[in-house]
Amino acid sequence: MPHDILVLTEADLRKAVRLDLKAIDVVEEAFRALASGGVIMPPILSMDIPQVHGEVDVKTAYIPGFEGFAIKVSPGFFDNPKIGLPSLNGLMILFSAKTGLVEALLLDNGFLTDVRTAAAGAVAARHMAPSTVETAGVMGTGVQARLQMIAAHQVRPFSRLLVWGRDAAKATACANDLAETLGIEVQAEPDPARLVAQSQLVVTTTPAREPVLKADWLHPGLHITAMGSDQEGKNEIEPTALTRADLYVADRVSQCEKLGELAAAIHDGVWHGGTPPELGDIVSGAGTGRTGDDQITICDLTGTGAQDTAIATFARARALTAKAGTTIQS
Amino acid sequence: MPHDILVLTEADLRKAVRLDLKAIDVVEEAFRALASGGVIMPPILSMDIPQVHGEVDVKTAYIPGFEGFAIKVSPGFFDNPKIGLPSLNGLMILFSAKTGLVEALLLDNGFLTDVRTAAAGAVAARHMAPSTVETAGVMGTGVQARLQMIAAHQVRPFSRLLVWGRDAAKATACANDLAETLGIEVQAEPDPARLVAQSQLVVTTTPAREPVLKADWLHPGLHITAMGSDQEGKNEIEPTALTRADLYVADRVSQCEKLGELAAAIHDGVWHGGTPPELGDIVSGAGTGRTGDDQITICDLTGTGAQDTAIATFARARALTAKAGTTIQS
Repeated sequence: MPHDILVLTEADLRKAVRLDLKAIDVVEEAFRALASGGVIMPPILSMDIPQVHGEVDVKTAYIPGFEGFAIKVSPGFFDNPKIGLPSLNGLMILFSAKTGLVEALLLDNGFLTDVRTAAAGAVAARHMAPSTVETAGVMGTGVQARLQMIAAHQVRPFSRLLVWGRDAAKATACANDLAETLGIEVQAEPDPARLVAQSQLVVTTTPAREPVLKADWLHPGLHITAMGSDQEGKNEIEPTALTRADLYVADRVSQCEKLGELAAAIHDGVWHGGTPPELGDIVSGAGTGRTGDDQITICDLTGTGAQDTAIATFARARALTAKAGTTIQS
Repeated sequence: MPHDILVLTEADLRKAVRLDLKAIDVVEEAFRALASGGVIMPPILSMDIPQVHGEVDVKTAYIPGFEGFAIKVSPGFFDNPKIGLPSLNGLMILFSAKTGLVEALLLDNGFLTDVRTAAAGAVAARHMAPSTVETAGVMGTGVQARLQMIAAHQVRPFSRLLVWGRDAAKATACANDLAETLGIEVQAEPDPARLVAQSQLVVTTTPAREPVLKADWLHPGLHITAMGSDQEGKNEIEPTALTRADLYVADRVSQCEKLGELAAAIHDGVWHGGTPPELGDIVSGAGTGRTGDDQITICDLTGTGAQDTAIATFARARALTAKAGTTIQS
């Protein structure tokens, strides 16, 4: 029996989906559901293709209460830049959670992943950062540095922002972009220790394999969200910071143990905190979050299939409202 | 950088792709590549959704020498028939094996899986059945009963065909359909023992959980292909048949140990044959196949991601030649 499938290109999606409070709320809902126990999220299917310097990851999750579930396919082909193509691509497929029929093909080339990743950062900031953030800091100068700050500013409207990157020119460019977008004071800060010292909220967005944020820099009233580690071997935060903090929270413990900051802390033998709470526990109130503005908290984000299902469902709804995309009968 | 993506509906694919010798050859090529060791085929990603009586499987494989690799998503939602929808759906996504870019979306609703499954049966018959097959038998009366015989007839042009099913009316209908399609004598045979006794090639295509083919029925000069078992707990062939046969071959040992006829034989403690050869070994000559027309051989097919990559690549090429489908820029 033929049915309609909505096909959305990256251009359609960029018009229809914004990184706004609604997007943040729908990702928060996914984390809340994750904590409730009804979410089904199988381990990531991962295929390395060394012959072509490529890899493909497939993620999915079923969330009770969401009308659809997404399957996300993320290829990374690292020789692409040599021929003028981006390394990362991919798409999401949204299926009806009632019938399994394909409802939408989201040819987003990673755009929706960017949005849902930044939205998760905002969820972490909303539930874990001190109630007032005057100065925020971001480490890293790429797409996520920009999006994380755009998202975080909606839940903690800081008046000042510091940007650190290994490349000073990129840090300045990122600072200029964010000053224009947010309409606040933004400065490139060449000393990462000074950036952390002045900030109440720091987001690390680097692909670092050696820590870029030292445990000695922790200070009362600081929240750190680390979102750069998404593969074994990556590490942004000095492992002892996780135990020095009053609270460490994982987006998904089973992933953070393998891919996140937690993996490095376990590897170094410095983690003795048992099973940490998950962000969904903090969001839902099932776990205890920050209990005072002077505490030090850390949130470790590795990215979950539940976020993909949330953003894909959201994107389809926004696109239908905007009458975006092409409908195919199949 | 926008690029073209070919979108093919089930109707487009049914027009462009036929179960012919070319399709059989391309699936054979996938098996040959599997044996060569360069194929990358991760374990299946499987998500059960008991809340909605559904499940989703994701398969993929990279085959050196193929221009693309497929990711196949197969949802099964078993309450669908109550609302007039088929239980099984799904699609394949074809990616460039050089860049990881999406090349084609194949909205086949399982049609290409049907074709590649039947083509694998023909590969098994071509390389394992006696050189001359006068009478073939098929157990089961569904889509695969028909397609398996259409495929097998192209590599072993038998002049007579017997059909057995639990439902006599369905067996007659299947026999009538195949008589018309193949233009040969086809009879419904109510006694499965008699069907096997008269046949040199038997294909089992049932979802049986108790054997429908007994070990005592084996006779010299018989080849059996069992393709019905694709889940734990399914079992078409009495386990002792596997050891009584001169040769047992798996499409993929690691899968057959879990899902195939081999799983039942291991479970019953009757399998003592060590690691059996794979169909690709027989195809490529790396393993020893049938060495005489009087031997008894069995091939166990559970379905592989390599077949999906082969048929998806083939389908795209056929569709481009036929100028079928819709092109989307993304």
